[in-house]
Amino acid sequence: MPPPIVTAAVVIIGNEILSGRTQDTNLRDIANTIGAWGIRAMEARVVPDTEPAIVATVNELRVRHNYVFTTGGIGSTHDDITAECIAKAFGVNLIEHPTIAALIRNYPAPPEVITVALRMALVPEGAGLIENLAGGPPGFYVGNVYVLAGIPSVMRAMLGSLATKLTGGAVVQSRSVTAYVSEPAIAEPLRRLQANCPNVEIGSYPFFKEGRIGVTLVARGTEANLLTETTEKIKSMLVGMGAMPTE
Amino acid sequence: MPPPIVTAAVVIIGNEILSGRTQDTNLRDIANTIGAWGIRAMEARVVPDTEPAIVATVNELRVRHNYVFTTGGIGSTHDDITAECIAKAFGVNLIEHPTIAALIRNYPAPPEVITVALRMALVPEGAGLIENLAGGPPGFYVGNVYVLAGIPSVMRAMLGSLATKLTGGAVVQSRSVTAYVSEPAIAEPLRRLQANCPNVEIGSYPFFKEGRIGVTLVARGTEANLLTETTEKIKSMLVGMGAMPTE
Repeated sequence: MPPPIVTAAVVIIGNEILSGRTQDTNLRDIANTIGAWGIRAMEARVVPDTEPAIVATVNELRVRHNYVFTTGGIGSTHDDITAECIAKAFGVNLIEHPTIAALIRNYPAPPEVITVALRMALVPEGAGLIENLAGGPPGFYVGNVYVLAGIPSVMRAMLGSLATKLTGGAVVQSRSVTAYVSEPAIAEPLRRLQANCPNVEIGSYPFFKEGRIGVTLVARGTEANLLTETTEKIKSMLVGMGAMPTE
Repeated sequence: MPPPIVTAAVVIIGNEILSGRTQDTNLRDIANTIGAWGIRAMEARVVPDTEPAIVATVNELRVRHNYVFTTGGIGSTHDDITAECIAKAFGVNLIEHPTIAALIRNYPAPPEVITVALRMALVPEGAGLIENLAGGPPGFYVGNVYVLAGIPSVMRAMLGSLATKLTGGAVVQSRSVTAYVSEPAIAEPLRRLQANCPNVEIGSYPFFKEGRIGVTLVARGTEANLLTETTEKIKSMLVGMGAMPTE
């Protein structure tokens, strides 16, 4: 039996992404990381720091995918509302997690700052912790929803700690072939090639580079031998048109 | 009467974004550009190149916002299905647009390539065109859904042509103040400050830079005088804590 298809959704929480102030890089990082574990990002949403948006999005996506990963909104300021939204989404209380609280109480900071920082110890009741390899407060998960930091380095430090803890399925591999040809010139043979290779998905990505047009063809699939076969067919097609494909 | 609030959703179409192969930059570009026109990106979705996902997403978002902007999937290959999905979303036929077809028939290319390229002339019946300042085939719009290319430079060339054609509302402006303080140290005074400035939204974005922790506080709002007032209060708060804020 082939390994199962395991899917995920990614929820990027933060007004700063929607305002255009900050370029999100977490989606790409998460997609690449979980992809290597056999978990496919099937959709992503960017939502503002508002409770209705976060609660509705998480509840819609968590029933549709094996995993949901959120980033952002777990700091200590008034605009960090992810933990309470996740609690609301699951209909559970927000509680102070003793492990996180103990960690924060050890910070070298004045008592009034510790009191405020303890906001980061609030998690939905029943949540498990996601170790933060960067050393700060951990993330948490409830059910299949994994709540990560928004700062990219901290997000990666949390996600990395999940490497051996999530259950992936078939891993999608990819092979890329690039040539300086126009998309319309290859569209028809490529369509026939795709029709003959139903178990490999071929994407076509045109580009402009140093004044020349070109296209990168990306074959994606779970079976290495089929990928190799398809990649060779793509190269033959391009060579047959007088192009010089590079992989 | 204050100017109205005009909102938008952004739909990024493309497996290459969800696979982690390609870093999307279109969301940020669109958000910044339309933001300056008084149109606020309120949510964004990244969806795969599949008809059910694109149709459902567009139909959900177009009734919720003044504008929807999509990027990607309007080339000439088999994985470019945006035009037919938009037609399906609106329940109209896909037709060859005479203006685009005439443009493509003028390409210096063999007849069989022209035939394939004419796929890019297919638009939903009743669609208007979005001029492509980069010189290639135009984008199109149906109702309040604006369909742009995925290649960032082409997307910008299309979006730019809309500058005088869309109707914006109140423009959100922002002021940023940065200081090397920890978020928990400012969280409580910042919460009070936010409570006293209901018409300005204050976001708090911690960062690590050259081994130091800091935070950027971003005040956003539509009234310049309130923004200035709030920014001054933020600076005073930080100075009062012994920090040296920079704007």
